[in-house]
Amino acid sequence: MAGSGHLKLLRPAAFYMFAPLRPAGGRAAVKATFCTTAPPPSISRYPVPPKKDLPEDIAAVMEEVETKGGFLPNVFKALSHRPAEFRTFFAYYNELMNKETGGLTKADRELIVVATSMHNQCLYCVVSHSALHRIYSKKPTLADQVAVNYQNAELSPRELAMLDFALAVCRSDTITDQHFLSLEEVGFDREDAWDIGAIAAFFALSNRMAHITDMRPNVEFYTLGRVARPKGDGGSK
Amino acid sequence: MAGSGHLKLLRPAAFYMFAPLRPAGGRAAVKATFCTTAPPPSISRYPVPPKKDLPEDIAAVMEEVETKGGFLPNVFKALSHRPAEFRTFFAYYNELMNKETGGLTKADRELIVVATSMHNQCLYCVVSHSALHRIYSKKPTLADQVAVNYQNAELSPRELAMLDFALAVCRSDTITDQHFLSLEEVGFDREDAWDIGAIAAFFALSNRMAHITDMRPNVEFYTLGRVARPKGDGGSK
Amino acid sequence: MAGSGHLKLLRPAAFYMFAPLRPAGGRAAVKATFCTTAPPPSISRYPVPPKKDLPEDIAAVMEEVETKGGFLPNVFKALSHRPAEFRTFFAYYNELMNKETGGLTKADRELIVVATSMHNQCLYCVVSHSALHRIYSKKPTLADQVAVNYQNAELSPRELAMLDFALAVCRSDTITDQHFLSLEEVGFDREDAWDIGAIAAFFALSNRMAHITDMRPNVEFYTLGRVARPKGDGGSK
Amino acid sequence: MAGSGHLKLLRPAAFYMFAPLRPAGGRAAVKATFCTTAPPPSISRYPVPPKKDLPEDIAAVMEEVETKGGFLPNVFKALSHRPAEFRTFFAYYNELMNKETGGLTKADRELIVVATSMHNQCLYCVVSHSALHRIYSKKPTLADQVAVNYQNAELSPRELAMLDFALAVCRSDTITDQHFLSLEEVGFDREDAWDIGAIAAFFALSNRMAHITDMRPNVEFYTLGRVARPKGDGGSK
Amino acid sequence: MAGSGHLKLLRPAAFYMFAPLRPAGGRAAVKATFCTTAPPPSISRYPVPPKKDLPEDIAAVMEEVETKGGFLPNVFKALSHRPAEFRTFFAYYNELMNKETGGLTKADRELIVVATSMHNQCLYCVVSHSALHRIYSKKPTLADQVAVNYQNAELSPRELAMLDFALAVCRSDTITDQHFLSLEEVGFDREDAWDIGAIAAFFALSNRMAHITDMRPNVEFYTLGRVARPKGDGGSK
Amino acid sequence: MAGSGHLKLLRPAAFYMFAPLRPAGGRAAVKATFCTTAPPPSISRYPVPPKKDLPEDIAAVMEEVETKGGFLPNVFKALSHRPAEFRTFFAYYNELMNKETGGLTKADRELIVVATSMHNQCLYCVVSHSALHRIYSKKPTLADQVAVNYQNAELSPRELAMLDFALAVCRSDTITDQHFLSLEEVGFDREDAWDIGAIAAFFALSNRMAHITDMRPNVEFYTLGRVARPKGDGGSK
Repeated sequence: MAGSGHLKLLRPAAFYMFAPLRPAGGRAAVKATFCTTAPPPSISRYPVPPKKDLPEDIAAVMEEVETKGGFLPNVFKALSHRPAEFRTFFAYYNELMNKETGGLTKADRELIVVATSMHNQCLYCVVSHSALHRIYSKKPTLADQVAVNYQNAELSPRELAMLDFALAVCRSDTITDQHFLSLEEVGFDREDAWDIGAIAAFFALSNRMAHITDMRPNVEFYTLGRVARPKGDGGSK
Repeated sequence: MAGSGHLKLLRPAAFYMFAPLRPAGGRAAVKATFCTTAPPPSISRYPVPPKKDLPEDIAAVMEEVETKGGFLPNVFKALSHRPAEFRTFFAYYNELMNKETGGLTKADRELIVVATSMHNQCLYCVVSHSALHRIYSKKPTLADQVAVNYQNAELSPRELAMLDFALAVCRSDTITDQHFLSLEEVGFDREDAWDIGAIAAFFALSNRMAHITDMRPNVEFYTLGRVARPKGDGGSK
Repeated sequence: MAGSGHLKLLRPAAFYMFAPLRPAGGRAAVKATFCTTAPPPSISRYPVPPKKDLPEDIAAVMEEVETKGGFLPNVFKALSHRPAEFRTFFAYYNELMNKETGGLTKADRELIVVATSMHNQCLYCVVSHSALHRIYSKKPTLADQVAVNYQNAELSPRELAMLDFALAVCRSDTITDQHFLSLEEVGFDREDAWDIGAIAAFFALSNRMAHITDMRPNVEFYTLGRVARPKGDGGSK
Repeated sequence: MAGSGHLKLLRPAAFYMFAPLRPAGGRAAVKATFCTTAPPPSISRYPVPPKKDLPEDIAAVMEEVETKGGFLPNVFKALSHRPAEFRTFFAYYNELMNKETGGLTKADRELIVVATSMHNQCLYCVVSHSALHRIYSKKPTLADQVAVNYQNAELSPRELAMLDFALAVCRSDTITDQHFLSLEEVGFDREDAWDIGAIAAFFALSNRMAHITDMRPNVEFYTLGRVARPKGDGGSK
Repeated sequence: MAGSGHLKLLRPAAFYMFAPLRPAGGRAAVKATFCTTAPPPSISRYPVPPKKDLPEDIAAVMEEVETKGGFLPNVFKALSHRPAEFRTFFAYYNELMNKETGGLTKADRELIVVATSMHNQCLYCVVSHSALHRIYSKKPTLADQVAVNYQNAELSPRELAMLDFALAVCRSDTITDQHFLSLEEVGFDREDAWDIGAIAAFFALSNRMAHITDMRPNVEFYTLGRVARPKGDGGSK
Repeated sequence: MAGSGHLKLLRPAAFYMFAPLRPAGGRAAVKATFCTTAPPPSISRYPVPPKKDLPEDIAAVMEEVETKGGFLPNVFKALSHRPAEFRTFFAYYNELMNKETGGLTKADRELIVVATSMHNQCLYCVVSHSALHRIYSKKPTLADQVAVNYQNAELSPRELAMLDFALAVCRSDTITDQHFLSLEEVGFDREDAWDIGAIAAFFALSNRMAHITDMRPNVEFYTLGRVARPKGDGGSK
């Protein structure tokens, strides 16, 4: 039956989504600073329903994300104002961002989000996905560099071509064969191009939803992944 | 169980989606001009899978849409290259475009798509949703006016405010209280604002997918809804 | 005497200008829908003089155009507010648009008008010259494609180079030798370049006059040339 | 007969056009510096026909302009490459720029040309019409101020509103009632608005023709009207 | 004698400039992570002279800044390529940024730098002055918010008006009385306006020098001021 | 001692700065028209201190400049409102503009100022530095050409590349190796690139200070260097 595909699609991805947010042994400390009983005042311009009023499936997703990641990113709260849109938004998100196949790492995907969300001046997405990029890439400064100016960030030619294409899609440029050739020159095939473009396209949507709702990033995102790893020297370059 | 909500959400909307495309008794005539056995060459830059290779649920949706609307819009074919994204795309689409509730008519929703897709220079969406607007609104020239320049189209103050807001979202402007006040002055409440903004946001995604795939509108869309209705004189103003 | 050149120049061209608008046997039907006794309210923001108050030469031109084309395009009415400017406007127009010499077809000329007028968001010129393009080219969808986005319209390399140059002139770019070389690569010589550029330049004027007067296209223009020709397969590609 | 209107229109205006260029007793001195026998090499990118090959009416206009103004502005030479367009261009020009009626002085008209031609980065028109403005207005520095930045030039509120409207037309903005109200607040009526807008529209054409032909201003234009008038102190403010 | 004023001006300010960078007891820890013997490879596109080749006064300033701040910001190294420009740059910098008088706090001044440097996509200035803002303001997230989009950052009306003015100067807008009135409404006088504007103007220079030299921020700047203060909870809002 | 470098730097340059303004024997005549006892009303939006209230060193600089150049450029008066900033501004200015070393002539430096200040619509700098360019280059029309549109001014390839780079810096483009290569192709080395860029950067500051203060050019600047030199033919080309 048609619907079962949707069903299978949506649930497991939601389970994984913010798993990387939980550093080993780090959750307790983080929780201590943010778990207040009352919701912070400035998550969204729209009402955020209390957990008890949420549809069962949405409440379950939230609980799982919070358990695994250590805190619940505000995008879940802000979009729960419209449960049906919540479901399709996160189904789409998971389909694009949590893939293991293809020529794009998770860090690549986050970098695309940082660069295009900056173009759209989306506070929520730049701050939260910069954090995710720092975690996935273990590079504590690259997302900040890309946010200010991806053109002189410390990127490989492959990453630069990836972001050039993502920005072309982000600006709604007319995409031509030349765009695909530029990607092929650094090793991306047509399916990778779809992935890069689809992420840029999805965050064109996401950034605008954040503007409509005045979505605010959780304070945790500003610092996640910045602290030096034990024994690592990596931040210094 | 969480998934059942998704399931219920997705199916029925897909059934309705292009029903309005079939004027009473008009299908046969339309079919006569387009039903060629071979698919047109220029639907998408990406491969379009033959129907037999499609997942069952997607093939079923396509059949239903084609049966009810008289032809299958190319967006279904183009996006079937990625079945999982197909599912989330149309689930999201249906959630935003086929609603009866709220302060927005279906014609209003299509007008938002025309105006914002024109800003993004998206051939597929301007041509196809102009057709849908003509059908829903029974106004054969307004979509063309909005496509060229919504600022001097023959719009009511309510429609103009609606498109001003949609374009602000489309451009990824920072949305402020003033934007909401401008909508309230013409009778839109906050939930209408979300609807307007979410449609503009979704087509920010959709337009960019059309650019990535170089999606081409079916030739039927160029003329649908332009012909005078029986007994109507309305096009002449 | 100097003036006789002007005289000879101006009259005959005006006679021909909208002749193509009258399909064989089609005038009566069209007239049925638009020949109201009172002028439509929204032709222009400026007063349109009644025919009896017009200078004899202008009234004669109008009568001829209406007789041959089946209806009188609103630009004639709107600009008759200033008879002297009317004369120079149409003299210039005819000189550029009704030429048979040179490397540009009439359809090419109309396509330049569609593309540049869209850049200037000129409702009157996009709608009316899209109609003329459909009639001259017998391509019922190309003008719509160019209006949305000439960069991914179904154009030949020659047409694309022509529109690239026209848009450079339209934007008032500094024109360099490189522009002429790009035209030469697809077979246009320097005189063709002047023609393309002069049409773009003239419609830079025309589009702005339409904005000043809020000139509205006749409703006939929206549908002219869209209907399938008898025995034609057209449109479907 | 229709054409006689055109005839009467075109000739006399051409006679007056550059009369103001000849300051009393000043012609001889000016001539001494520019009357070389060979045409300067850089008038236009297109061939300039020798006088003997020109149509009689065009040669007559040129002779008259040169006799009265002291030198022949290069626009006459550059456009004589296309005699028919030459005739309509100058007929239109004269109709808009040499009028005595209406609420606009000749200096006002030149100021509109300077401001809008600067927006279009048109060397010929900025340099030549700045000279004409200096002569008509007897203000030796205002045109330079407007060329750099009309928003902080030493303009009256009336002049500022005039240029605001001219620039709106120049940019091909959608013109609304608010634009007309802003003009009315400083005393311009609807016919003045047409004049301002039509001048901006005509120079949208003219600037682009100058770009196509790479038209170069006569060296005289750079200094005309800058030198202090005898007994006048006026430039110092 | 004239020069003595300059002398007094320049030295003491340089002494203070980066004093705030050294948190009590924090220097040793910071030094541990960055004091490598070899200079990092990517400070500037231009050669950085070794300390022994520097003029005595410049070497003295550098030593002092490094001693007090814990590390030497790369701008000192990059600009020491041109000692004379180094002296005037830092003299100007100190004059604008280290003032205690006037209606602007040091945190205000840094916020202006962050907002305008972001507009100019200047990596060095955004990263380094965001750090300084975090230290001066003790607000660990505001600079990041302003960097992404100052229009929806958590600013007071006073701060918002300050940044609106700074951005107007940054974009080289024509500054009018209205700009000053907007500042006065939130309590800034004309001298404050000069300060705000002069900082925006100076960083228009500074950002461009950073682009020319491809100046890279010290890695320390990315994290300075982000860590929670002892006993403070402030970051969470 | 550190400061002595500054001291030596600042004084002598100020002495020379406007020396070229004084044509032999020309000072008296110029003085006659501008030396009024009361300061002109429109030098700056900020108060201009009377000479007696100025710091001794600043008064001395002004006297010297006026003596040598024949009049005191208004930038000295406008910036004397803030003596400390006056000192650093002119020290920086002299360092960049009065150099004899390197691959840039003084006329080149002025041309950079004209082109970039025009981009920033800075009345004071365009008018005053166009005058300086005319004097240094002995080309009476080139600065006007560059002000309108440097892309089609009568520039050598070397000058064009110089201005392309200056404009890239002016717009705060990300500067890449390609920019330096384009300069090298016409003979500029890396130190020249710094000079070009630093001048563009400094006038990014200067233009904005002029906007803040609404600085007005002395009337002398509009005509300086335009009049034919005795025995010279130069203006005619």
